[in-house]
Amino acid sequence: MVSIEDLSKIELRIGRIIDVQDHEGARKPMYKLRVNLGEELGERIIVAGIRNVYSKEDLLGKEIVCVANLEPKLIAGIESNGMLLAAGEGEKVSLLMPDKEIKEGSRIH
Amino acid sequence: MVSIEDLSKIELRIGRIIDVQDHEGARKPMYKLRVNLGEELGERIIVAGIRNVYSKEDLLGKEIVCVANLEPKLIAGIESNGMLLAAGEGEKVSLLMPDKEIKEGSRIH
Repeated sequence: MVSIEDLSKIELRIGRIIDVQDHEGARKPMYKLRVNLGEELGERIIVAGIRNVYSKEDLLGKEIVCVANLEPKLIAGIESNGMLLAAGEGEKVSLLMPDKEIKEGSRIH
Repeated sequence: MVSIEDLSKIELRIGRIIDVQDHEGARKPMYKLRVNLGEELGERIIVAGIRNVYSKEDLLGKEIVCVANLEPKLIAGIESNGMLLAAGEGEKVSLLMPDKEIKEGSRIH
């Protein structure tokens, strides 16, 4: 069990995907995404292993949910500054999105 | 900053809203939702303060994102066993949903 305080340590924000490139250096099918997290946080590079499930066109311009305060991680030579939230496993993966458009950087609670 | 381990303590699951009732006992506009979290977790009652933003018809049958291991909380006489994730504040609230239908109970990571 977790408390509301535990939950509040995880900073989830709405981001908009503004660029999608193949992450050529990775062995797995990954994208290098540029995500706009709003005025306060700005743009971030996020590496995501969803290239076998989503096309570039599926992703470009979409609003997604990002863990904004995750420790940076080097993924096959690119520093990923955050993580997209998705449900499911393998090829049955579904990204989380807000059901209505909302301002980039909006906090999730 | 948080680590992947911190994040993994929060159990987020896809649930389907199978019943929506006004929470009559609450001073704020709240719903008492029945949510199906899949075979392993079953059904839960979740109280959510989104009645000024979403109609019953908006919610019924929809897949949402639920904090499944949150400490139960008594909200105006009803025990809420979980929390829906939403972005934004006040009347600018947008629930998080999977962008494609996915099995109830699917884990988010």
